[in-house]
Amino acid sequence: MKFVRYGSRNEELPGLIDADGNIRALSPLLSDIGCDMFTEEWLSALAAIDPEKLPLVSGNPRLGVPVSGIRQVIAIGLNYKDHAEEANYPVPVDPLVFYKSVSSLSGCTDLIEVPASAEKLDWEIELGFLISKEAKHVAVEEALDYVAGYCTVVDVSERHWQFDKGGTLGKGKSYDNFTPVGPTFVTSDEVADPQALDLWLDVNGESRQRGTTAEMVFTIAELIAHLSTYQTLLPGDLIITGTPAGVGLGMKPETYLADGDEITCGITGLGDQVHKVAMK
Amino acid sequence: MKFVRYGSRNEELPGLIDADGNIRALSPLLSDIGCDMFTEEWLSALAAIDPEKLPLVSGNPRLGVPVSGIRQVIAIGLNYKDHAEEANYPVPVDPLVFYKSVSSLSGCTDLIEVPASAEKLDWEIELGFLISKEAKHVAVEEALDYVAGYCTVVDVSERHWQFDKGGTLGKGKSYDNFTPVGPTFVTSDEVADPQALDLWLDVNGESRQRGTTAEMVFTIAELIAHLSTYQTLLPGDLIITGTPAGVGLGMKPETYLADGDEITCGITGLGDQVHKVAMK
Repeated sequence: MKFVRYGSRNEELPGLIDADGNIRALSPLLSDIGCDMFTEEWLSALAAIDPEKLPLVSGNPRLGVPVSGIRQVIAIGLNYKDHAEEANYPVPVDPLVFYKSVSSLSGCTDLIEVPASAEKLDWEIELGFLISKEAKHVAVEEALDYVAGYCTVVDVSERHWQFDKGGTLGKGKSYDNFTPVGPTFVTSDEVADPQALDLWLDVNGESRQRGTTAEMVFTIAELIAHLSTYQTLLPGDLIITGTPAGVGLGMKPETYLADGDEITCGITGLGDQVHKVAMK
Repeated sequence: MKFVRYGSRNEELPGLIDADGNIRALSPLLSDIGCDMFTEEWLSALAAIDPEKLPLVSGNPRLGVPVSGIRQVIAIGLNYKDHAEEANYPVPVDPLVFYKSVSSLSGCTDLIEVPASAEKLDWEIELGFLISKEAKHVAVEEALDYVAGYCTVVDVSERHWQFDKGGTLGKGKSYDNFTPVGPTFVTSDEVADPQALDLWLDVNGESRQRGTTAEMVFTIAELIAHLSTYQTLLPGDLIITGTPAGVGLGMKPETYLADGDEITCGITGLGDQVHKVAMK
């Protein structure tokens, strides 16, 4: 199933995408789609829903974060070899793990509005996935059983804040709207091979990133096994899996976003995002 | 007011500490004490409660995290000059910010149980505070208006995981029970000067850390002003403010916790913690 949440920020209503790509309202059945609803019981109840019997949502509403209750954003750095190389870092031997503030979560078309001190605003297209159940010391072979589903995410990054203001990653990646998620949240059963998805990102219509999740240094299963050794993963944990080459930091010369720029991007089967940039 | 939450994990009941230091049950009035309850309206309602009219809680119950709904743990590194020196790092010019997984939150006497791969288990006593209302680009002069209250926290740290397994701080600081909070959560009005509190920590009864929040590199107000420039702070954000000298990493030779060791620690007016260490 493909879930969305549509409407104004903090007032989103739950919906799903039908076979024709239309939004159907889930509100007659559910008040929201939450991170605690990817248990087997819930999923079989949800699978019994006939989308054709739900009201069509008209117009072109804003889409918010497609699942409510994301409780933390765990990010993996340098997880594509070509991106590690363009950023002048060695390819990691162990996953590089950091966190983004949950206050940075936003919808797939929301404005990325930053203060003038954001001198080096950069883009990173990433595959995101949500944890379905408690994961602690999970083996690689069983790790994909802990994935509720997948989504398109941009890890918006301000390189000046990230590198020059204390030297830890989260500070440059946690501003409002720096973690747009969606448009859809696609349950695992609809993603045949999460390690064979194409990722793309353009700025002002010019190609910037072209990659495939086949090129990850650590696969999704390996990431879950690794992370679950160092912390207990729980429903509501959104894990974003790193970006392929083509970010502004890696261009020669380095090239960052300017007021009025437009980012468009997407991942196979998970949907596209579009963001205008506004410098205050 | 001094709040506690008592009982088994995930089944804690809300309480407050009366003038004699006894726990009084808040359950007749409230189902829980949450991070969204530090608004002026709630605080005046809570202040009207006469603790003497609430039931006494008998026995010696386990105390859990004293406020429910902590949504993220934002940590400040190297925020005491003597600790930066013992760890062989320069004193930061800007606050060093990282995040701990919320799954690491635990109570003030909970066992710290780690797998055998935890070779370098270390202690850090820290002052914690909770944000009361949305904070975005807040000035230093107004920043303390955004503090709901204070608590004793230990930033338990596994140095091998922190330094040798990918090189980012969160990975070594996010295991279960690595962020014990409490016993009490003390509202701001009862802490006359948060920059004049003594912190102490012993291991097996031997003095390890003795410090004062007067020695912070960046004050609480400065931290709020700085953080709120890079992310929006919201109720439920727990910020832990760094540790003074005396951690295992800084001892010569480096000395870490062993199976059966006991940590005792506390902060003036906020209460004490005690933790046994168990290596599996």
